[in-house]
Amino acid sequence: MFRSLLLIAALLPAAWAAAAPYQIQHVEPPHWWAGMKRPGLQLMVHGEKIGELAPSLAHPGVRITGVERTDNPNYLFVNLDIGKDARPGEFTLLFRRGKELVTSHRYRLEARRPGSAQRRSFGAADAIYLLMPDRFANGDPANDRAGMLEGAERADPVKRHGGDLAGMRAHLDYIRGLGFTMVWPTPLLENEQPAYSYHGYALTDYYRIDPRFGSNADYRDYVATANARGLGVIQDIVVNHIGTGHWWMRDLPARDWINHGTTFKPTNNQHTVAQDIHAAPEEKARFFDGWFVETMPDLNQRNPLVARYLIQNTLWWIEYANLSGIREDTYSYSDPAFLNDWNRAVAAEYPRMNVVGEEMDARPHMVAYWQKGVVNRDGYASELPTVMDFPLSDTAAEALAEPESHNKGLIRIYEIIAADYLYADPMRLMVFPDNHDRPRILAQVDDKPELAKTNLILMATTRGIPQMFYGTEILISSPKERNDGVLRADMPGGWAGDRVNAFTGAGLSPAQRDMQAFVRTLFNWRKTSSAVTKGKLTHYLPRDGSYVYFRHDGKQTVMVVLNKNAKDSTLDLARFAGMTKGARRATNVLTGAAVDLGAPLALPAMTSVVLAW
Amino acid sequence: MFRSLLLIAALLPAAWAAAAPYQIQHVEPPHWWAGMKRPGLQLMVHGEKIGELAPSLAHPGVRITGVERTDNPNYLFVNLDIGKDARPGEFTLLFRRGKELVTSHRYRLEARRPGSAQRRSFGAADAIYLLMPDRFANGDPANDRAGMLEGAERADPVKRHGGDLAGMRAHLDYIRGLGFTMVWPTPLLENEQPAYSYHGYALTDYYRIDPRFGSNADYRDYVATANARGLGVIQDIVVNHIGTGHWWMRDLPARDWINHGTTFKPTNNQHTVAQDIHAAPEEKARFFDGWFVETMPDLNQRNPLVARYLIQNTLWWIEYANLSGIREDTYSYSDPAFLNDWNRAVAAEYPRMNVVGEEMDARPHMVAYWQKGVVNRDGYASELPTVMDFPLSDTAAEALAEPESHNKGLIRIYEIIAADYLYADPMRLMVFPDNHDRPRILAQVDDKPELAKTNLILMATTRGIPQMFYGTEILISSPKERNDGVLRADMPGGWAGDRVNAFTGAGLSPAQRDMQAFVRTLFNWRKTSSAVTKGKLTHYLPRDGSYVYFRHDGKQTVMVVLNKNAKDSTLDLARFAGMTKGARRATNVLTGAAVDLGAPLALPAMTSVVLAW
Repeated sequence: MFRSLLLIAALLPAAWAAAAPYQIQHVEPPHWWAGMKRPGLQLMVHGEKIGELAPSLAHPGVRITGVERTDNPNYLFVNLDIGKDARPGEFTLLFRRGKELVTSHRYRLEARRPGSAQRRSFGAADAIYLLMPDRFANGDPANDRAGMLEGAERADPVKRHGGDLAGMRAHLDYIRGLGFTMVWPTPLLENEQPAYSYHGYALTDYYRIDPRFGSNADYRDYVATANARGLGVIQDIVVNHIGTGHWWMRDLPARDWINHGTTFKPTNNQHTVAQDIHAAPEEKARFFDGWFVETMPDLNQRNPLVARYLIQNTLWWIEYANLSGIREDTYSYSDPAFLNDWNRAVAAEYPRMNVVGEEMDARPHMVAYWQKGVVNRDGYASELPTVMDFPLSDTAAEALAEPESHNKGLIRIYEIIAADYLYADPMRLMVFPDNHDRPRILAQVDDKPELAKTNLILMATTRGIPQMFYGTEILISSPKERNDGVLRADMPGGWAGDRVNAFTGAGLSPAQRDMQAFVRTLFNWRKTSSAVTKGKLTHYLPRDGSYVYFRHDGKQTVMVVLNKNAKDSTLDLARFAGMTKGARRATNVLTGAAVDLGAPLALPAMTSVVLAW
Repeated sequence: MFRSLLLIAALLPAAWAAAAPYQIQHVEPPHWWAGMKRPGLQLMVHGEKIGELAPSLAHPGVRITGVERTDNPNYLFVNLDIGKDARPGEFTLLFRRGKELVTSHRYRLEARRPGSAQRRSFGAADAIYLLMPDRFANGDPANDRAGMLEGAERADPVKRHGGDLAGMRAHLDYIRGLGFTMVWPTPLLENEQPAYSYHGYALTDYYRIDPRFGSNADYRDYVATANARGLGVIQDIVVNHIGTGHWWMRDLPARDWINHGTTFKPTNNQHTVAQDIHAAPEEKARFFDGWFVETMPDLNQRNPLVARYLIQNTLWWIEYANLSGIREDTYSYSDPAFLNDWNRAVAAEYPRMNVVGEEMDARPHMVAYWQKGVVNRDGYASELPTVMDFPLSDTAAEALAEPESHNKGLIRIYEIIAADYLYADPMRLMVFPDNHDRPRILAQVDDKPELAKTNLILMATTRGIPQMFYGTEILISSPKERNDGVLRADMPGGWAGDRVNAFTGAGLSPAQRDMQAFVRTLFNWRKTSSAVTKGKLTHYLPRDGSYVYFRHDGKQTVMVVLNKNAKDSTLDLARFAGMTKGARRATNVLTGAAVDLGAPLALPAMTSVVLAW
């Protein structure tokens, strides 16, 4: 397989060039910074027979501490020490074969931004807008193919649609206006794959923005423009796997670079093996080492060179693009020891940086296992600060749609919240109605906007960091059964000629306008609420079709009534005297109306209520 | 309410006697032992105006350290110190009013059995036979009413049926013959209630065996007879609540002795409040302080006198009856701090004693919360050694009955076992197909004996301490919806004139005989298996309708195949090479047949297989 791939590679122009001996094809990271806390830097140098060479350099404060080679002579790993006295600037890496200077490479140390290490990140005070770049807005139709294997074909839900960084940049004000403070775009790195490249999770170059989205510089500009509007950007990182189109697959850096080499062997998707004290070693290996899908070779992070490469790559993007956070894909599929090393490296360089990992499981104990601060009985102590609250997300959608009974409906939301003792820090949970891997929340709640609103109220006011998927604000729906290409729908108005425009409001139905206004009110209010962004949560057992909880911080009290009653009703507030504490008047934060707390609270049919005082 | 109860009480003969001043009605514990580790003993002395008196005594090594009184003058709590030098024997408690000797009471310190403190208890090497005394065997029809409110009325499933200690004693050899090593009878203490007294959970006297079961001496004799046959006895203890017929309810020892006094206020049954960091204080109070049902007043264990009373009562029964274990009913409903004090007191006096608590919840994290050794994030560290594995029990029954799919069937059993990392000691889980609070396992698996057998194989061979409910061995079934009176069926042969006799085998159908022989073979073999009783568990993902796991301790390997295939099939053993490790031959422990491990394993339709080598 290895040999035959090399033969195929030899037919490609790029690979032909690579066949010329001692020509450097890749040096990664492509540049670095002076003044990082971590002095070590490991360069991956790739080129035909490059492993036969010995490097040297001359730059004040920078020295080579050693080299590492693998079973592939086309790679050389050069370990540098970048001292505190190293100044920004360029130097030349010289490569010799014996005494003969064979080739050289200019390398650059940049200056860091002031305050880079101490940058703020996302937390419970933030609200995150999740978007899929290919489906959000096509700002530059000229880059729809950009010379890549797959071009835009908008009519097909599983093909690319042309969205890009230019489109994302054009609508930053829209996102800010909705009340969000962070943007999480799904991956933007190159996906030079023959199919399904639109989603971005099969990356083929760790250091390159996919040209169909724009350039690295465009991405940096996008983040800067967002920052200037008070929006942070969270990058979606994939360290578990790559795409089969990655250049490594044509010339593997080491035989054990990829689990199972170049042979597809699927993961068993059995997340529990990570925790399971009884799991057969074969099942553990199958989970961690199996490939996510046939087009996504699984990286072997137990190889220290792989681990180092991935860690440096994350640091590089934080520093290069000026990121405010990291979202880590398929978290539990990666090697657990590596994951902790990776997190520690990020935290060492950026002590306030938040990272959210994806463990797609509906059981709180499965998700809690991965949160930093949880002492697991099997000895594993994760370093991941934030986990995605799939238990709440999956449960809430079902609970709102199903009829109430002693063990169905709102009680299930209550019970998920009641399991918060399993987490080290429930305020660091990312909560969300849905995301790019779930049917649209509107579909999950039987296409009833009032239930979607209740779900949004829950996510905006419960503990944690809310995240909303783009288009929920204009009632984008989907099939009820998960259908990725379809649920990742185009944002109307993102393409020239769209009849409906979510950004300007043109052509939106009254229901869509209503939802958009609702989202705008809810999340802009949330930003101002100390009780919601910092306070405690106290909840009462659901009763008679409503679930009441309070957020409170001593300065403000927020009372939330999630209400599923199909008819207008009233709620006797006497039961909550321990929380209302004699308060007389409150404001309905969604309508602005004044509310008398001395009287039963009116609950309009299917309408949830948020009061603050 | 308090006053009116006293008036009613005055109409009753016993209460009439109680109305005579300074006559002692109760002294509890009724006696104690010399040589207990804990020197303190608190006597509850009850009688009209007894609180006005001052006690004294003269016995070497025994002294009164103080008295405590409550808001009810009819009670006096006398604190004794029983020194190491105190000898067994009797002494007189003198009660004076001022200088006047008003009354006296003879009190006895007994000698302990040799080795009492270091008695062995139950663990994974044991198998427990759970029976309901009223429904197991009526050995003495003369005690079917015994002057109590409710007599036997066998035709009615919710009335008493007449089973008793004499019947239980007569069939100890039967239980031993089935391969069990422990008997857990549901509560035997007095339940002087007008209805539903058969189940025994509404006790009305903490120091008296219900006379319809026999006397205290009969109970002690029952345990001794069991012990002589190698069977231990586990007593079912209830410290959360009493029955409304308890004599306390006619003259409450203190206004706060019972939560909510004498007024019924139901518990919200919301177990999660124990763990919930967000639960409103009102919801917590409602759970812990609410009554289990209207006929079961809830004890306030935060009153130190109540706590002390309950702790001493447990120690009294262990020492008096010579118990091998404790089962604690409705565990999480009691005050959590008290529960730990209670467990610590038992462990201090009997360091090897095991206690199993009932937390009836299907979520492993909810049950694990209560196991000793688990460090919970809310700070609670339980002292309870053994918890009942309701998650496995409930899941296994469903999993065996439902069709296999990617997330249904055997995978659900696998995933419950995979969550064992949540427990401090999975070998200390009590595992069971069903119990007295569940539809019969046969009903849960659609009345298919082969599925019930698979369930029994699971419970007998997975980690933990297996418990089987009486009658499962002869295919007793029930309605599929829980119906307590019916599922707690009479054991055939336990009543004179029964046409069928499970104990002799007379009248059993071939299917019943087959099941009985199966249980006998399975549990007698289990006793001999070091791998099952002491070894590790290693399991493989269910595939093609079977779930394979191994128990192994370096001396013996046991391979279990839970098989749901409706047709004969074969299992390729190559996948399990990591556990079979080149072994060539094994024995099918259920059939005795030799098995060639070099060939695919034959799996007869719907038949699970246990191999050992």
